[in-house]
Amino acid sequence: MSSQRLHALRTRLSSARLDVLLISFLPHIRYLTGFTGSNGICLVTRTQALFLSDGRYRQQAREEVRGARVIIVPASLYEALATRVGLTLKERVGIQEQYLPVGELNKLKKLFRKVRFVPTAGLVESLAAVKDDDEIAKITAAVKLTDEVFDEVLTFIKPGVKELDIAAEVSYRHRLKGAEADAFEPIVASGVRGALPHARATRKTIRKGEMVTLDMGCRLNGYHSDLTRTVAVGRPPAEMRRVYGIVREAQQRAVDAAAGGLSARALDAVARSFIRRHGYGKYFSHSLGHGLGLQVHEAPRLSKLSKETLVSGNIVTIEPGIYIPNLGGVRIEDNVVIRDGTAEVLNRAPKELLIL
Amino acid sequence: MSSQRLHALRTRLSSARLDVLLISFLPHIRYLTGFTGSNGICLVTRTQALFLSDGRYRQQAREEVRGARVIIVPASLYEALATRVGLTLKERVGIQEQYLPVGELNKLKKLFRKVRFVPTAGLVESLAAVKDDDEIAKITAAVKLTDEVFDEVLTFIKPGVKELDIAAEVSYRHRLKGAEADAFEPIVASGVRGALPHARATRKTIRKGEMVTLDMGCRLNGYHSDLTRTVAVGRPPAEMRRVYGIVREAQQRAVDAAAGGLSARALDAVARSFIRRHGYGKYFSHSLGHGLGLQVHEAPRLSKLSKETLVSGNIVTIEPGIYIPNLGGVRIEDNVVIRDGTAEVLNRAPKELLIL
Repeated sequence: MSSQRLHALRTRLSSARLDVLLISFLPHIRYLTGFTGSNGICLVTRTQALFLSDGRYRQQAREEVRGARVIIVPASLYEALATRVGLTLKERVGIQEQYLPVGELNKLKKLFRKVRFVPTAGLVESLAAVKDDDEIAKITAAVKLTDEVFDEVLTFIKPGVKELDIAAEVSYRHRLKGAEADAFEPIVASGVRGALPHARATRKTIRKGEMVTLDMGCRLNGYHSDLTRTVAVGRPPAEMRRVYGIVREAQQRAVDAAAGGLSARALDAVARSFIRRHGYGKYFSHSLGHGLGLQVHEAPRLSKLSKETLVSGNIVTIEPGIYIPNLGGVRIEDNVVIRDGTAEVLNRAPKELLIL
Repeated sequence: MSSQRLHALRTRLSSARLDVLLISFLPHIRYLTGFTGSNGICLVTRTQALFLSDGRYRQQAREEVRGARVIIVPASLYEALATRVGLTLKERVGIQEQYLPVGELNKLKKLFRKVRFVPTAGLVESLAAVKDDDEIAKITAAVKLTDEVFDEVLTFIKPGVKELDIAAEVSYRHRLKGAEADAFEPIVASGVRGALPHARATRKTIRKGEMVTLDMGCRLNGYHSDLTRTVAVGRPPAEMRRVYGIVREAQQRAVDAAAGGLSARALDAVARSFIRRHGYGKYFSHSLGHGLGLQVHEAPRLSKLSKETLVSGNIVTIEPGIYIPNLGGVRIEDNVVIRDGTAEVLNRAPKELLIL
């Protein structure tokens, strides 16, 4: 797997007019080599791939890394590029401009005065956006686990319970089922707090008649799930029921439209125009979704400004929402794998309005 | 509080020969202004402080930010620096080189061709390393909460239980007691896995006669705790008992020696030389500890290479360990507040060897 990915990346170096690509972003290093530790760099040339780490990871690197030569060095990884790898020529070396801090680049420039460092963006991202069968299976397993947790935590959502306690159940049950971690801190937003798309769980108590938005995910074998459902505790106000129906249909329309060959912007527009036609356009204040994989947020982005086109093998979230200040909010999110001509929803969690 | 911090930072601009400092690292923005959201930049000049964020955070910024003028802008925060703030002069603008990605600096340079951007490091870190009474109280509360969780999870540590299940209990109980989140994924390393200082919890089952290292912490009101204890499940091998005694005494000696005015390197040496004298020097493979606050790892660093000196108001971890491949490991960690002439351990968790 890793060898194929490294090979695919290598073929992109020439079109980017690079002799070498220096990969410093750990999720990309994991994607390319399999290494899961916290310190390492990967150097890809047109003919080979090298992985450097320190002595703490000697054993782990040997077990995990495939497709790259492992070099264990005692001190600074960058200095080892000079002493062990001999990176001293007048080469064009790509760096990952979205991730490498300015201070690190300055260190590199001091160590390699003749090297031309070239900012690059998106080289690994665009590869990682297209999942192979093994990755699709891993994400499917993470999605299934989160669906089960959602089903279990429904029994805890009732009047008098704190948002934070529900968040605690989400994390707890993810872990008990074998997840490595939450994908992010679970969002539990009840009543008027549902109007904040980024609300974290608080000490607020759930009351009868409120809607509750749960946004939760896990990491399993390195890959993520990301599920949102909004449920009601007792009968919610008429406008919220109406809003629920609009979000649900907007979400379904986007799912039905999703397919390889469609632009990400056009897919965003499917849900956005439906919500706008029903008068809630200004309350859908974020983008439709994002790619999902080794990172919770990755390419492709489904937004008004996206320039990407969906291709078979993309896995994305589809998560429209409506957020009305001082009233509440609804968001419904599935994880979807894109195929040529169609899309498949990986989630099994119900989407009709659950009144608990 | 925020106003004082911003004022203190402002007085440092002139010695750094800066007209402006651009703060992009969110934990520092929270430290300086109180803002807890996920998008913002802070601009500190010699006479004023500005905070910029987007429309999602209009309400939140108004509630949270103190000591800086809040400017809400529709699109890119950097572009707003030109249109709204008028950053167009030939100024020397400091950037945070440890955090700002190369690509962001390149965007800034394109927008402000006459500005001289100067890489800086440590300006906010050195301020944040000295805690005021309010911060000490917040960290003390987080430490107390983690001590309670440690006490509770002891009852779950027994033969046949998976490391991951213990980690799940740690997270769950932190949350139920009101923590915002884990400070980091809990480490539960049993038996020979204890020899890996960075071991995450796995599906491995705990067996009788093994030692188990738990490294756990939480975030409460933005501030962190970080506790490590190693316990035994049944009677451990003689060498592990001996190692435990050495780590415990090394830790106590470092705690006793800690005080304002001492160099961080000298404190590290107190524990390191004790462990070395007992023949385990090469098995203490990391530094003695680190500052603790809005970040889990911050200044000062207590290591062989540190150039910092402890001052009253520092809060640090003191956490020596011995890790013997194919046998196991022991680490004992307290959180300690430094005073002039002395230090106070914030933890109450017991340090004698618990045989469960």
